[in-house]
Amino acid sequence: MQINGTAYRTIWPGEDGASVEIIDQTLLPHVFEAAVLRTLDDAARAIVTMQVRGAPLIGATAAYGLWLALLADPSDEALDRAAEVLLATRPTAVNLRWAINDMLARLRPAAPDTRVAMAKARAGEICDEDVETCRSIGSHGLALIEKIAAGKQGGPVNILTHCNAGWLATVDWGTALAPIYMAFNKGIDVHVWVDETRPRNQGAALTAYELGAHGVPHRIIVDNAGGHLMQRGQVDMCIVGTDRTTASGDVANKIGTYLKALAAHDNDVPFYVALPGTTIDWTLHDGRDIPIEERGAEEVTRMAGRDGRGGVVHVDIAAPGSPAGNPAFDVTPARLVTGLITERGVCAASAEGLSGLYPEQGR
Amino acid sequence: MQINGTAYRTIWPGEDGASVEIIDQTLLPHVFEAAVLRTLDDAARAIVTMQVRGAPLIGATAAYGLWLALLADPSDEALDRAAEVLLATRPTAVNLRWAINDMLARLRPAAPDTRVAMAKARAGEICDEDVETCRSIGSHGLALIEKIAAGKQGGPVNILTHCNAGWLATVDWGTALAPIYMAFNKGIDVHVWVDETRPRNQGAALTAYELGAHGVPHRIIVDNAGGHLMQRGQVDMCIVGTDRTTASGDVANKIGTYLKALAAHDNDVPFYVALPGTTIDWTLHDGRDIPIEERGAEEVTRMAGRDGRGGVVHVDIAAPGSPAGNPAFDVTPARLVTGLITERGVCAASAEGLSGLYPEQGR
Repeated sequence: MQINGTAYRTIWPGEDGASVEIIDQTLLPHVFEAAVLRTLDDAARAIVTMQVRGAPLIGATAAYGLWLALLADPSDEALDRAAEVLLATRPTAVNLRWAINDMLARLRPAAPDTRVAMAKARAGEICDEDVETCRSIGSHGLALIEKIAAGKQGGPVNILTHCNAGWLATVDWGTALAPIYMAFNKGIDVHVWVDETRPRNQGAALTAYELGAHGVPHRIIVDNAGGHLMQRGQVDMCIVGTDRTTASGDVANKIGTYLKALAAHDNDVPFYVALPGTTIDWTLHDGRDIPIEERGAEEVTRMAGRDGRGGVVHVDIAAPGSPAGNPAFDVTPARLVTGLITERGVCAASAEGLSGLYPEQGR
Repeated sequence: MQINGTAYRTIWPGEDGASVEIIDQTLLPHVFEAAVLRTLDDAARAIVTMQVRGAPLIGATAAYGLWLALLADPSDEALDRAAEVLLATRPTAVNLRWAINDMLARLRPAAPDTRVAMAKARAGEICDEDVETCRSIGSHGLALIEKIAAGKQGGPVNILTHCNAGWLATVDWGTALAPIYMAFNKGIDVHVWVDETRPRNQGAALTAYELGAHGVPHRIIVDNAGGHLMQRGQVDMCIVGTDRTTASGDVANKIGTYLKALAAHDNDVPFYVALPGTTIDWTLHDGRDIPIEERGAEEVTRMAGRDGRGGVVHVDIAAPGSPAGNPAFDVTPARLVTGLITERGVCAASAEGLSGLYPEQGR
């Protein structure tokens, strides 16, 4: 994607051959700035503090994190310790585990002196594969948007999305937003309702930022508003991403996704979830078994914003002394999902649907 | 209710005999300060800018606003003009219309020279009646909480509420929070999940503030979180207020209420709406006919908070240049409401339920 005319990915190897650069997403939308990761701890911290976030990008960062760890120490022990540190960063997204297991399976049998180059090459491949995967998700989702556009009597196709599953959540293109970018590029009249997505405001901060940079018409709404818009016929479809999908099609995504799925179901609005196959946890069948990360209360009670002089300040927004709870994800049961948009096509949110697209995983 | 040991109502006549004082709710929770209203325009502005909000308190403020108008000019023309100005302040809450019509019915037949004293006296009565109404709502709602407490195997009764329907939304006691205060005062173990309630954060700013001042255990959550908590069995009941209820039991309330009602329904959590009879619009039967106020985009894209030095600052929180939509209310259909808690008792959210409690309105 392009920012001010320059093509960016969200993560890339540094020119010095010993670092990784990322777009620091904790500074957006106020400041667009790259951060340099030089060590395993830098990579782990980037994931924990959400300088990078989004299931595919977390996976890519973990892969490069293993490379950074091996640069310092290519031994078996260091490799295993690095995997452990990275696995512990965030519990819900399964791409993290997938990427680390993929790397370990290749790196463990290799001699320590060949591991460093191998790790860097494979992390790069994981990034390239993610871009291709997202491009395919985009094409399959585009067909759904085209169908809705064809059925409309004029006016834009109004698409609601929650959180950020755009190019900032992946290496490029995005998952939920890839079909929207492709529809827009093709000249289809689209308009996106961007859920603010409290507490970290990934919608208002990241999704609105990247849609704006690409010129896609959109409006930010508070998370409370989507149900009302659906009741009034102002939403034609929903597309969201996911951090983990069970083998039966239950979907863990940013907290609040479940509420939008309920409203979509109540108003006959199609509700799609876009995901790379690497986000599917074939070991889980019931979404209630997905571990849900509880994050710090200060994410709820404090907020960052630009003050009148353009500086970024943090302010307390809640009643002083009031405690807060902060579950970061919820689970949308498969019964509320119209379809899953994957790199292999669109399928029903069910064991049959998923095993039809991924027969090699069938049991 | 008490703030730092002093008993307050949310609105009271000034000692100078020519003004009304209110708690300026736009400054809470950061500053507790009274504002003085001296003119019709002051009263109208207080409603529009939400220095006062909450259906019952809007009605009380409008009643006093008419008195302030008559202080300046007690003529028929001034009275009608004042009613018009006040009616135009906010379109959704029906107590506004009720209070103005109640005042007009008494003031229009009276001679101009008796109107001023009459208006002040009736506005005071409306306030006193609201306090008694809320106390009755509290008693009826208390019985529901006691029943749930009796059915629990230990642990607090977890009650979720949205927006602020506490004493700050009324003259005293509150609607949705009155049963909670009474349960707490009676020694019942209660814990309140306080929806932040974007975009104006009435939950985090007002509900948390007043629950904290009274010592009621609570935790602030983002509006996205309630569905997840219900899925995990952490919510025993929901109680919310309403700005307008149709004769068939559809309920307009702060944007996002509908989403919580959907989640409550999906998880068999009882969902109650607390309201004074004055909030019922007997002329409307279908909630879709309730006018929904669209407020300014800056409520979504800007936020007030305390900075590190304790001062209140406004910050921009969204991607620069991104537009925002801001519908202020949504409508929860009666089918999702377990019961209506009124000053006359609890009834089904239906034409039968309501006309059973208010037979004088039956047709």
